[in-house]
Parts: sequence; structure tokens; C-alpha cells
Amino acid sequence: MLKFNETNQMDSVNGALQLRGEIERIVDEIYSEGFDHIFYLGIGGTYASSMQAVTYITGKSALPVYVENAAEYLTTGNRKLTEQSVVIISSVTGSTEEMVRAVSQVKEVGARIVGFIDVKEAPLAQSVDYLISYPANEQIKFFMVADRFMFNNGDFPQYEQFYKELDGHLAKGLVEVEKAADSFGEQFAHEHKDDSMHYFVGAGNHWGAVYSYAMCYWEEQHWLRSKSIHSSELFHGTLEVIDRDTAVTVFVGEDEQRPLSERVAKFLPRICSRYTIIDTKDYELEGISPEFRGRISHLLLRAITQRIDAHLEKINCHPMEIRRYYRQLDY
Amino acid sequence: MLKFNETNQMDSVNGALQLRGEIERIVDEIYSEGFDHIFYLGIGGTYASSMQAVTYITGKSALPVYVENAAEYLTTGNRKLTEQSVVIISSVTGSTEEMVRAVSQVKEVGARIVGFIDVKEAPLAQSVDYLISYPANEQIKFFMVADRFMFNNGDFPQYEQFYKELDGHLAKGLVEVEKAADSFGEQFAHEHKDDSMHYFVGAGNHWGAVYSYAMCYWEEQHWLRSKSIHSSELFHGTLEVIDRDTAVTVFVGEDEQRPLSERVAKFLPRICSRYTIIDTKDYELEGISPEFRGRISHLLLRAITQRIDAHLEKINCHPMEIRRYYRQLDY
Repeated sequence: MLKFNETNQMDSVNGALQLRGEIERIVDEIYSEGFDHIFYLGIGGTYASSMQAVTYITGKSALPVYVENAAEYLTTGNRKLTEQSVVIISSVTGSTEEMVRAVSQVKEVGARIVGFIDVKEAPLAQSVDYLISYPANEQIKFFMVADRFMFNNGDFPQYEQFYKELDGHLAKGLVEVEKAADSFGEQFAHEHKDDSMHYFVGAGNHWGAVYSYAMCYWEEQHWLRSKSIHSSELFHGTLEVIDRDTAVTVFVGEDEQRPLSERVAKFLPRICSRYTIIDTKDYELEGISPEFRGRISHLLLRAITQRIDAHLEKINCHPMEIRRYYRQLDY
Repeated sequence: MLKFNETNQMDSVNGALQLRGEIERIVDEIYSEGFDHIFYLGIGGTYASSMQAVTYITGKSALPVYVENAAEYLTTGNRKLTEQSVVIISSVTGSTEEMVRAVSQVKEVGARIVGFIDVKEAPLAQSVDYLISYPANEQIKFFMVADRFMFNNGDFPQYEQFYKELDGHLAKGLVEVEKAADSFGEQFAHEHKDDSMHYFVGAGNHWGAVYSYAMCYWEEQHWLRSKSIHSSELFHGTLEVIDRDTAVTVFVGEDEQRPLSERVAKFLPRICSRYTIIDTKDYELEGISPEFRGRISHLLLRAITQRIDAHLEKINCHPMEIRRYYRQLDY
């Protein structure tokens, strides 16, 4: 299988899950100190992950949690972000300009910052109050913070059982999903390698991932045009430009917003012949209780799209690392 | 001028501004009763306007205000929306399925609902606690509510002066913008009538309007493909698919996020030859103080895009009223 290393990938996920002790100490300390608001702050891909975490929390908890975009924060500001607030960020390089400046502004305000910064030596890593440095797995990290806040808040009584199952089975489950999705990924990549436009539709706690898949993968890494549209919003405009030959992919997850994507999946075949439905329910996840799947189905979607990416990269002879403009020019 | 009636349009805006007494009584009553959170709830175009209002408030006030999408609310729910909350909605027909159901759910929770419902007889109009029935001008209505909440909250000391200027000059100012933009609109429509894809970029309190312009106007009413992208996010993915011949329009407003759009406007000419910059600063607005322009520059953008729409509709022989699927099919 292309770009697939079962042992490494399992180690990566298991290592992320092992951050739990550290995350629990941090969140418990913050929770007991008290706070007025929680902000997931990001830009681009990390903004997308922030949207995922906040949607995840909203339906399950009354915690005062907001998504904030770093560049918007730098201009509009946010009067709700105070010295009593908690800000959660993630950065691979620790050098994204907007994040560096936003964190510096948050520090002036005096809010506590929990930072997942992969490069421990980056100045950004030095600026956060709580540093956790471990590569990749951004969604798992963000959701672990969310889960611990909700646990403390009495919104997640099954917390221990949930993580017992993840610790035991998630890593293996995800590589098995990749294996099961590989031939689909190859076929999909062949079918859509030349798309002039591809619509990606999704909802719920994976909406951020769909937004990011269109923008940070197809546009940024494959240089293919794509548009993400929320399953609920598709019916309020975008549907009018869909016809027989329009490439549309609906991601159907398993959280509370599943019916919104099911509605799209049911409607599409009537107006379109180039649609694809990717439903995480079609994939096994051994050892994970059915009632927990909705909390992590976004990780399955990611495992599936990784198979598309691996094949698309090869078929299109377009290494995913190259950028036309990003960090190539000053702007 | 096509689709332009100066007297009617001025009457429409002035009539909306005259709702202020009613809005003030409602908001003052709610403010004095107290509330835990304010939600702007919408779907499609009204969700877009909700985003505008919430961005507008965020930088100026610590009021606990959230955007909520009606379909997401119906599935994920929102544990922060309680009987102490205030929900603000707008609906032209009063019959949009998701709104009708979401309002019914909000009523069960017991939150107070302020509704701008154009059709007074619609069942939705009967369901709200405070009904204001006056056609069009959704942004003005939403922002008037926002302004009065901020006034009560001590965040808008210039409130009276601001509205004195709007009452005296806004309606005339906006029709003058339309007149000034008409030849630009015609030229733009000719240039872009056959676009296979058009990127619309914007930020701040007009981001929602840009999102809606791409989705509710180009896609839904012109059946032309378009994608909206926030000025801050363009640099984190979408830029890679822009080249010499890509049609990109940047809307530059005058609120705090203006620098984010200016950055795009400055960068684009280096990588693209089919770009357009629409800057509200290029348009006069007699009688409105410079420091207030950022609060209403989104209305100028709307006045300008109305000129594009009028010409595009004629050139493409595509009446904006027709729908391929919306309300033509059950789904």
C-alpha cells in the first residue's frame, strides 16, 4: 500500500493517546482555577480543527466555548477573550505568522494558553503556558482537551470507558480502515484526477475536516479546485449548480448531524451521476462501542481520504509537499 | 438604470430605519429582564446575515453572542441555548422548513424569540415572541438589534449620533452608490458572464455577505459556479489554485478586518490577471461620518453587487427568480 506504514501509524496514534495524563493534569488544573470562556484559536487547517472541536462540544455541553480565527482576532479582536479565558492552539511548525502574532496578543491579555506545538524549539512553543509537543494527530489532541473539560463539567460520565476503548483499539482500527478503503481510494483518485471542480459536502464534528480537505488538501496540496459546503447549506444555494456531470462527494459521519448528510446522500442521485457517498458506518472499528463511534467518526473519514490522497499524488505526478506560492513569496 | 427605482429603494431603507423605535422597545425590555446568551439563528442567506451581525458585535462588545445554524441546531442542539436566552431570526416567507422546525424547538426550550418575518400571516410569525414585519433590509434589521444591545451594554456611546446620520443620509447614500457603481457592474457582468468558476474573497462584518453572494446569488440565482473564501483563509490553501486566468474578486470593506482584504488585494496582481478589487472606500457616502463607515460598509458592497446582478441577469438571459431544484422537488 502506498504511503502506509502500519507500525508507524499505530505508534503515532497510540503516542497521541498517551498524552492523556499530561492533558488531564493541565485541564484539571485550569478547570479548578476557573475560566470565563474557552477559545480554540487557529488559522487554515488549525482553524478547521478548531471548528471540529467546538461543534463536538456544543451539542454535549454548555461550556462557554468559541472558535476564533487568528487573523480575525488580530484585527477585530475579541472582547470576550480576557485574562480569565483559556486558549487552545496547535501548530506543526510553530512559525505560522498569524498564530505567532495572535498568541503574542493573547499573552498581553493574560489568558492561559494550552499549545500543541510539534517543534519544541519554536518561539511559539516558548510563549504558551502549557506546552505539549508531539507530532501530528491534531484532532485527537483537540478532542482529548474537549473531552477532559466535559468530563470535569459533568458532561461525559463515560469518559473512562471511552478512553479505555480508544487506548485498546483506536490505532489498530484506523489502520484497518485505511486498508479497507485503499481500493476505493485508488478508484476514486482515477475517476477524479482531472476534475475541474469537486464539491465536498459534510456536517457535524467532521465539517471542519471537510472544509480542510477541500482547502488544505485538494487546493493546497493537489492543486485541484474544490469547494466545501455544509450539508445543511447545500440546499440553500449550491444545489443549483449541480447537474449530471458535477463531481460531488458527501461525507456521512456518525454524530448527531448524520441526518443532514444522509439527506444530501438521498437527494444527490436524483440530480447528479458523478456523486460519491463516503459513509463511515460502512467501516468496522473493532473494540469501539457503537455509542462512541460518533465521537471519532471524523478520524475514520481522515483515514479514508488519506487513501485518496496517496493515490491522487501518484496518479497526478504531483508531490503533495510542493507549493506554488505558500511560503515561496512574501505577502 | 436596470432594476433601479430610486424612490422605492429609498423608501425601503427609510422604512427599515423607522423600525428603530419598535426595536428599541423590544431590546430594552429584554436587556432589562436579563439573558444568558444571544443567538442569531438562520439558514442559508439568513445564516449568512447572522454571521455578519455576530462578527460585528464580537470586536466591539463582550456580549455573549453566538451564530447558530437552524439545521445544526435541530440535530446537534445547543446546550447553551436555554430559557434565559434570546434568539433573533429573520425570514422572508416564514416557511423555510428548517427555520419553522428550529423555532418550534426553541419555543419548547422557552427562549425569547425576536422575529423579522416579512409575511405576517405565516405560522412562523405567530410563533415568535416579538414580531417585526417589514420587507427586505435584513442586514439593517439585524444590525439595529445588535446596536441597541450594545448601546444598553455601554458599548456604543455614539449610538444616537450614528442613527441620526443614518436616518438623514443612508437611504440617499446607498442609491447614490448604486448609480456610481452601475457602469462598473455592467462591465463586470460582461467580463464574467461565462466564468466556469469565480472566487469571491472578503472579511469582517461583510464576510457573511460574501458567503451569501457566492452561494445565494451566483450559485442560486445566476447558476454560476463560485466559491467564497475568507480573506484570512485564502492564504492557507485556496491561493494555490489561483493563476493568471482565475476570476477572483476581493471585497474590501472598512471595518477592523479591512487589512486582511487589503493584503489579498495587494497580493493578487502578482499571481492573477483576472482579479477585481471592490473597495467601498472608493464610494462616497455623504452625511455619514468617517468613523461610522466601517459599521455599514457591508451595505455599500450590497449596493454594488446589486448592479452586477442586474446586468448579469439581462446579459445571461437568466431571470434571477428561477430555481432548478429549490422548492421544485421534495428532498
